[in-house]
Amino acid sequence: MQQVQVERVSLNQITTEQWDVRQAIEGCDRHGVSWISLWRHKIQEVGIQETKRMLQAHGLQVSSLCRGGMFPARTKNERIKRIEDNKRAIDEAAELGAKVLVLVCGASGDDDLEVSRQWVLEGIEAILPYAASRGVQLGIEPLHPMYAADRSVIVTAGEANTLIEHFNSAHLGIVLDVFHIWWDPNIMKEIDRAHGKILGFHVSDWKVPMKDMFKGRAMMGDGVINIKKLRESVEKNGYCGPVEVEIINQDLWNQPGDDVLVQMKERFIEHV
Amino acid sequence: MQQVQVERVSLNQITTEQWDVRQAIEGCDRHGVSWISLWRHKIQEVGIQETKRMLQAHGLQVSSLCRGGMFPARTKNERIKRIEDNKRAIDEAAELGAKVLVLVCGASGDDDLEVSRQWVLEGIEAILPYAASRGVQLGIEPLHPMYAADRSVIVTAGEANTLIEHFNSAHLGIVLDVFHIWWDPNIMKEIDRAHGKILGFHVSDWKVPMKDMFKGRAMMGDGVINIKKLRESVEKNGYCGPVEVEIINQDLWNQPGDDVLVQMKERFIEHV
Repeated sequence: MQQVQVERVSLNQITTEQWDVRQAIEGCDRHGVSWISLWRHKIQEVGIQETKRMLQAHGLQVSSLCRGGMFPARTKNERIKRIEDNKRAIDEAAELGAKVLVLVCGASGDDDLEVSRQWVLEGIEAILPYAASRGVQLGIEPLHPMYAADRSVIVTAGEANTLIEHFNSAHLGIVLDVFHIWWDPNIMKEIDRAHGKILGFHVSDWKVPMKDMFKGRAMMGDGVINIKKLRESVEKNGYCGPVEVEIINQDLWNQPGDDVLVQMKERFIEHV
Repeated sequence: MQQVQVERVSLNQITTEQWDVRQAIEGCDRHGVSWISLWRHKIQEVGIQETKRMLQAHGLQVSSLCRGGMFPARTKNERIKRIEDNKRAIDEAAELGAKVLVLVCGASGDDDLEVSRQWVLEGIEAILPYAASRGVQLGIEPLHPMYAADRSVIVTAGEANTLIEHFNSAHLGIVLDVFHIWWDPNIMKEIDRAHGKILGFHVSDWKVPMKDMFKGRAMMGDGVINIKKLRESVEKNGYCGPVEVEIINQDLWNQPGDDVLVQMKERFIEHV
């Protein structure tokens, strides 16, 4: 297998939660990282125009904007509000030239998962024409099943692929994160099924024991995931874009961001 | 939907980890619970014959023995040892008249999940004739995907069904635990597929936030799982046997066992 090109590494901003947008952009520049994934709540602190200016000044490109989605809600009014917020996220993604707006589809707002999954479908249906009109690609990110109750009812690549086939749009694809998908007995088949529709690839690792279900992601190489095998499959199926390092981990947040970026690049070359 | 018959409730012994076998058997008797699921390490403390005597004295039946499985291991010698241990578990299940020996299939002993899954298949192949000769039924219990790295590479009902169809034996079926399967977009289809092969049904609940990935299961009614819907599907597909309450939860272990059994029966009637 070919080694990954280090030029593909992208810092997902949540890996350095201790940094604001300015620090993250400057940090990437210092460490020769030319891609970044930005979070909307961080952008709001400085504003979209200032963010754009800093990105251009430092020659950084935006691999993705985090995040849209969160469609299910018990009342119709609330679901409409979520759709409006997704349209604002699409505007922001367009403004920043982000390659994709990541959709974390949202948790069960009802105890019937099927109802929530239907709301996700209706939410995507409502925003997809707008995304197309703004030239923004939407990437459904299936989350690990352990987040079904609080973050996303879309928990397998198979479900994401079924939604993507249903809409059959040039502006809808899948974002694959190894942490969320590595366990799936059907994953190699589903990556093949997603051929040409893969809009992003995220890396971290799964370490046992996991002390915190949200902030327990590990640095690549510290866990059990065969990242190279998944990367090879994703590339074979047409995705050769930026690879985001997205590690939600309190220990990393307690370190100086520069130390995190040094280790991130080393581990990326060795384990991705 | 018909209400569940309270006579079907079975105490899975790990719900009252604070009790030994004698206390658990006597507790069931006191609270009118006529089924129990026993753990091998607890039985070892008093011995199989004494356990059997106590069960008979109190008129209790064994819904399942926990547990066999744990097949994957890096060396062939170690895998053979595991098979021998499974045969001892089969002997114990036969001796106790347990309705099923639960198989928790084991974690990835290798970073390639497919290799581990193959070892699971080979392990079942090695013990199934012995189980048949002893008249013991083996029940594959798919675990939640969050346990793929440390407990079971069999993480979906679909995988379990594929193994069961592969062997096509009267002595191999599936054990369905709502905590492990509730998130699965294919679960209703897979329960239908398991028609006539369901050997057990376990209940607890999924509560957010989950503080501990192992000891975080909740009492029925405290979480988001639609247990009744799953029970109805399981019954429709031929399983009308004991329903085990299996709750791994430190808070319950800190309470007097009698209090746990009182609440368990109330919640069983209301939420199962």
